[in-house]
Amino acid sequence: MTDAQDNRDEAVEDENLARSYGLNDEIVQEIQGAIEREDTAFIHDTLQDWHSADVADLIEQLKPKLRLPFLQIMEGRVDPDVYSDLDENVREHLVDEMEPAEIAAFLNELELDDAVDVLESFQEEEQREVLNEIPVEERVVLQEGLSYGEDSAGRLMQRNLIAVPEYWNIGQTIDYMRDTDDLPEEFYEIFVVDPRHHPIGTISLNRAMRSKRTVQVRDIMDTEQKLIPVDMDQEEVAYLFQQYRLASAAVVNEDGALIGVITVDDIVDVISEEAEEDILRLGGVSEDDLFGSVMTTTRARFLWLFVNLLTAIAASIAIGLFDATMEAIIALAVLMPIVASMGGNAGTQTLTVAVRAIATKELTAANMLRILSKETMVAFLNGSIFAVLVGFTAWFWFSSLQIGLIIALAMVVNIIVAAVAGMIVPVTLDRMKIDPAIASSVFVTTVTDIVGFVAFLGLATVVLL
Amino acid sequence: MTDAQDNRDEAVEDENLARSYGLNDEIVQEIQGAIEREDTAFIHDTLQDWHSADVADLIEQLKPKLRLPFLQIMEGRVDPDVYSDLDENVREHLVDEMEPAEIAAFLNELELDDAVDVLESFQEEEQREVLNEIPVEERVVLQEGLSYGEDSAGRLMQRNLIAVPEYWNIGQTIDYMRDTDDLPEEFYEIFVVDPRHHPIGTISLNRAMRSKRTVQVRDIMDTEQKLIPVDMDQEEVAYLFQQYRLASAAVVNEDGALIGVITVDDIVDVISEEAEEDILRLGGVSEDDLFGSVMTTTRARFLWLFVNLLTAIAASIAIGLFDATMEAIIALAVLMPIVASMGGNAGTQTLTVAVRAIATKELTAANMLRILSKETMVAFLNGSIFAVLVGFTAWFWFSSLQIGLIIALAMVVNIIVAAVAGMIVPVTLDRMKIDPAIASSVFVTTVTDIVGFVAFLGLATVVLL
Repeated sequence: MTDAQDNRDEAVEDENLARSYGLNDEIVQEIQGAIEREDTAFIHDTLQDWHSADVADLIEQLKPKLRLPFLQIMEGRVDPDVYSDLDENVREHLVDEMEPAEIAAFLNELELDDAVDVLESFQEEEQREVLNEIPVEERVVLQEGLSYGEDSAGRLMQRNLIAVPEYWNIGQTIDYMRDTDDLPEEFYEIFVVDPRHHPIGTISLNRAMRSKRTVQVRDIMDTEQKLIPVDMDQEEVAYLFQQYRLASAAVVNEDGALIGVITVDDIVDVISEEAEEDILRLGGVSEDDLFGSVMTTTRARFLWLFVNLLTAIAASIAIGLFDATMEAIIALAVLMPIVASMGGNAGTQTLTVAVRAIATKELTAANMLRILSKETMVAFLNGSIFAVLVGFTAWFWFSSLQIGLIIALAMVVNIIVAAVAGMIVPVTLDRMKIDPAIASSVFVTTVTDIVGFVAFLGLATVVLL
Repeated sequence: MTDAQDNRDEAVEDENLARSYGLNDEIVQEIQGAIEREDTAFIHDTLQDWHSADVADLIEQLKPKLRLPFLQIMEGRVDPDVYSDLDENVREHLVDEMEPAEIAAFLNELELDDAVDVLESFQEEEQREVLNEIPVEERVVLQEGLSYGEDSAGRLMQRNLIAVPEYWNIGQTIDYMRDTDDLPEEFYEIFVVDPRHHPIGTISLNRAMRSKRTVQVRDIMDTEQKLIPVDMDQEEVAYLFQQYRLASAAVVNEDGALIGVITVDDIVDVISEEAEEDILRLGGVSEDDLFGSVMTTTRARFLWLFVNLLTAIAASIAIGLFDATMEAIIALAVLMPIVASMGGNAGTQTLTVAVRAIATKELTAANMLRILSKETMVAFLNGSIFAVLVGFTAWFWFSSLQIGLIIALAMVVNIIVAAVAGMIVPVTLDRMKIDPAIASSVFVTTVTDIVGFVAFLGLATVVLL
């Protein structure tokens, strides 16, 4: 090998070994420039070997007014997967400009689950128009896909799979696979079914490959399978894959017949989505609105702020009960936010742990009391420490031992109440089938605000006036 | 098929079709009872076919004092995987009671990544004692595993893999697989390497199975591969798998030689872990402490509460600047928490979206200004609406148009400041290589508290006194 060859190899490797995959800002800027000056050649060259997910990211990063020109420049060169990888808000905006026939054409190229996903984001009428442009055979499959509940296993599954009878041998199985054209792009298991098409076992591809052609399927199949009912919620499906480290699993209809397969790469997206949903809901955001319009985002965030306004007014009313006390000793008004704020933070800590533990099934009826009593102990300890810190601070600040003692006592009370509320509220919401991530924090901070203000100002009224 | 047979089949199916997998409270209670009355037979029978992950969950759910007796009853029947599935806090507590030789024995049964994971949770001395009990060959592999950074690709990878030279054909590859004993439990791809052991392509098992024995490896290999440097951070590895929908990927050392493989099932755990970390950090919790002791948890939460105390005192000092104003008009003290609270919530909404968008690489330097200006618009709209609502509320409550106007103006200002801070703070922390999830919310709420109080009380001082 020559030195030159060697150097070229090194360069290739360096590129392969990029520490960070995905887009960078420079390339986005360069492409924006190229779109503006209509430099088609540059764009075609640059994007030649790009993965669909990177193209989708690029479109999201482009200034909105450059997105359509970009697609026009790329006409006929855009992998249909790009559309399924796009953020829903951005996709809606682009698809609005396309003819139903164009949309139908790219939907036809997508895997079933991705096509259903895209279709589902359309308005009903638009959906019908697009479906009419799709050949009847595929249309039926898509309509069936749409008929399953939005977050159900039916939406995640692929219908293409390899199912063989138990009396076959490996040789027959391999020949069948070689002769079948519409195999799924990726799969990891062969399913063994009985005459009623009920799944009775699985054989991993690696097991099959290492077996002689004469080996009977029934002799090497793994009969321990986790079956997924077609209407199972995707969160439960994700739990199943994670808990039992599955690579793929059979989806069955209500009669127990095999109708599809879910693979772990689909689950990766579900897990991110579900975690994302929890994070956003805990933060008071209803959905991923980064690429949403100003109006959509404003509306989406309004409700949460409105609920918060009501609770803030409730807290103010509680404070108003003690206006005479505050008028007499203005130091109380200065100090009162400390008690409420510390309670709010302690409550948020507990409820965050509780919401996650409920989602991962670690917090159950069996250990609820044990964990509640632990949280109460933790709150008592931290509450006492902060009572001392705040007590001394208030004492020296306002030269009043009494105010120091009052704020210390209010602090312990509020932090303990925070812990109890932080645990009970999410557990109760969960029992009532309400997602604890969505509403726990508003309830808990309402409790800690009101208890914080009332405990502090109430004690002061009794002791000082 | 007889009716009886049919009924039995139905029963089996019903069980397979359980709507909800995993443990339920009744079974945990029953097993606790059985441990207490030392009913060994019941426990052995019940747990016979359980998956290791369910046994691990059961141990976590048991009262702490029943965990060791349970393990004694199960002696010799516990799948080593149970230990790698256990929560770290619970495992530490149990492993403390075991001899180094016992620990070494079960570590030897685990896959490399799991064994390294368990070893790593030990104290240094304990780690050395256990390693000394492990045969030298495996010990070297484990020590190498431990030498990689905690959250690096090196920790996630398996070393067992199938690598073949490009001049082989499929027949040779299959024969080699049949002759090799220490294959990984699950794998999806065969790697093709050059003479220097650099990966040059991959063949999925399904592709290999469907090819004739005489087909050359080089003719069907896929040369588009995403290589993972052994020191790449696991978050980046997870991004790669998600972005490009990988089933597995080659891990290479600094010379570019193939040294391991990461499969998507390992990534499922990483994605959950990373999302969990973000959720907990946003909630002011440093780590999953559900099963931690009271002291551990108290210590872990103290720091966050302490930081919050400092910011709460800062806010109080700001309020204290206006004590004369409040003394004159006590309504201001009653109303001021509303302004701060609404700002805090609006800021949390923006920062939650920003933190997530940074983690998913959707928020970048390229679109930062565009999104900041959108957030400012949203804040202006919602701020105006809430200004009107709060303004009227305050006007009627305290019969003062002036107070209504002052609180309305303060509200708009604070909600806009909240949006700007909610966007700038996480972006700045990210540029400074500080995880935005961990510190954003304390900075943002400090800003919204202080701006909220100062804007409201300051305006009132200027206008009313």
